[in-house]
Amino acid sequence: MPSAIAVDLPSGSYQIQIAPGNLDALGSQAANLGLGKKCLVVSNPLIFKHYGERVLNSLSQSGFQVQSCLLPAGERYKTANSIQKIYDVALENRLERSSTLVALGGGVIGDMTGFAAATWLRGINFIQVPTSLLAMVDASIGGKTGINHPQGKNLIGAFYQPHLVLIDPQVLKTLPAREFRAGMAEVIKYGVIWDLDLFNQLEACPRIEQLRYVSEELLAEILQRSCQAKADVVSQDEKEAGLRAILNYGHTIGHAVESLTGYRVVNHGEAVGIGMVAAGAIALALDLWDKESLERQNVLIKKTALPTKLPKGIEIEAIVDSLQTDKKVKDGKVRFILPTAIGKVEITDKVPAEVIREVLGEMRSH
Amino acid sequence: MPSAIAVDLPSGSYQIQIAPGNLDALGSQAANLGLGKKCLVVSNPLIFKHYGERVLNSLSQSGFQVQSCLLPAGERYKTANSIQKIYDVALENRLERSSTLVALGGGVIGDMTGFAAATWLRGINFIQVPTSLLAMVDASIGGKTGINHPQGKNLIGAFYQPHLVLIDPQVLKTLPAREFRAGMAEVIKYGVIWDLDLFNQLEACPRIEQLRYVSEELLAEILQRSCQAKADVVSQDEKEAGLRAILNYGHTIGHAVESLTGYRVVNHGEAVGIGMVAAGAIALALDLWDKESLERQNVLIKKTALPTKLPKGIEIEAIVDSLQTDKKVKDGKVRFILPTAIGKVEITDKVPAEVIREVLGEMRSH
Repeated sequence: MPSAIAVDLPSGSYQIQIAPGNLDALGSQAANLGLGKKCLVVSNPLIFKHYGERVLNSLSQSGFQVQSCLLPAGERYKTANSIQKIYDVALENRLERSSTLVALGGGVIGDMTGFAAATWLRGINFIQVPTSLLAMVDASIGGKTGINHPQGKNLIGAFYQPHLVLIDPQVLKTLPAREFRAGMAEVIKYGVIWDLDLFNQLEACPRIEQLRYVSEELLAEILQRSCQAKADVVSQDEKEAGLRAILNYGHTIGHAVESLTGYRVVNHGEAVGIGMVAAGAIALALDLWDKESLERQNVLIKKTALPTKLPKGIEIEAIVDSLQTDKKVKDGKVRFILPTAIGKVEITDKVPAEVIREVLGEMRSH
Repeated sequence: MPSAIAVDLPSGSYQIQIAPGNLDALGSQAANLGLGKKCLVVSNPLIFKHYGERVLNSLSQSGFQVQSCLLPAGERYKTANSIQKIYDVALENRLERSSTLVALGGGVIGDMTGFAAATWLRGINFIQVPTSLLAMVDASIGGKTGINHPQGKNLIGAFYQPHLVLIDPQVLKTLPAREFRAGMAEVIKYGVIWDLDLFNQLEACPRIEQLRYVSEELLAEILQRSCQAKADVVSQDEKEAGLRAILNYGHTIGHAVESLTGYRVVNHGEAVGIGMVAAGAIALALDLWDKESLERQNVLIKKTALPTKLPKGIEIEAIVDSLQTDKKVKDGKVRFILPTAIGKVEITDKVPAEVIREVLGEMRSH
């Protein structure tokens, strides 16, 4: 069942290793890469309580000098302050250019650790050990790293590729149910934008939100397909010059919703679910795809127990305004990723503001 | 007299354009590169007073929407706080991925602006318009960007290449004399590590510290040779995996001296001058080169009115300890760049601490 996916990029290639029990193989995998002696594991207290010891042991048994740095959990700590803490521990332990930062955690830990690795001594080695579904299938692959600015998500960051992404599906068993569902939002996204077979598989899955307890095999297969989708896309477009933008399906409005609610009301996956419902409806309003496809997408989102309405109290004009500060804006035009069929999308900056307003109006919570 | 040097790198190529009066050509050069409409010029108040208007005019006459952001002058402001200010202005003006940051200033402005460009929206366009000799021949070329950590210079940063380096030698006429001499330290460095002809040319130059008033032609030629030396080296080794390290000749001890005196006593070029004297003496102590070559180097440094002794009050043990936090440390070993002849150096991590102590002891101020 172990599988390895190669991500081949102009700036270097690396592997995504997926196997149950993989945490214990981290040390030997890292040793194979010929990295320097010093490793700093960055995590949050809860994740570290579950898996920290196994990861430290695995690394030190392979001869690494290991230290750890714990940061508070949550998107609202994805700040310059947290990066500063990583820098301070890096300095204290005299990390060198050949040293390695290991991100043990979800997307927030991965993004911050990656950005610290990208910017400490102008770049040191970096390994991703994602522990959330969201991080496994999305955040850990493709080299996007960064932090939030008080006025916008991920406004500060760098493209920086890891040397290895090591995935152990067994760790998903300790993931809170809400986090698991959030990760499924990105899995569904790959179905809609890239992989019809994956979409069909998810539709056929009877207890999708319980998948991690039901079938280790099906879970590993879905992880593998999702990672492969992401790897395919980023391999063709590392720096988001074109194709890669399709991965932002559901993210344009999703980011605005997250940002306007202070990253406290909905999590990233939930925001993406809301964003996919919105983008799907925009695509229908523009006659890009049909009502049945939209319905299939939305049923799958609902079946995963993800929200399909805007959070209460959010103003539609605030969303429309917030879209202007999105990284995906080009010459003042907001870019949308819109499906044309299940498994296919197109990129457009020609969505009239009235259509956005109308679609969002329909998505108000009552 | 205008000359263009190509810097060809795996991550992209760009030109160094050298010509008197070049400031007024910035707009048309930027337009030729097909950059997005928005430009943000980052500078300090003094430089901006001299050249800001010409630069803004040149850009706006070529159709760019231009804003400016002024930061206080000086190495001690090369901090995360200053970067935050650039981010804030970038956000306020809604810069986009296709927008451009223009660094108008010396090495400090260039390093910070480059780092902000590298990290805002995970990377936007970047143009260097160096106004100091140091920035022209060194800092603006090769993609090293970054800021200082309270405990060490340039510990935070990224490799990020500009789209263009535009040099106007005429601006050197307003450079303070001490800054000009500091830049000559890097020019002398290229002579010692790479270009014997350049070294001979400098030796033959009767009033080297007055060069900018004496001969516009000779100045342009020396700029051109120096930029070419830097471009040659970084083109062969963008990320400092090997060869590029030779550019750090004089910098190992130089950085320690700068850092230990709080960046207030000696400027970067002066520190490099001191570092070259030290490295030259280490090379002699290890029998790598001869006394005559060392003497020729030191005479040239003195002729440029650069210091050759350690600043008063600095402790030798503090320097030796500080070397350990340098980015050039690998597995705990400090790497030195040592000359084997004028125009040639080698890299070694085998300098006994006693030799460092002895050489530094000889360099104490009395």
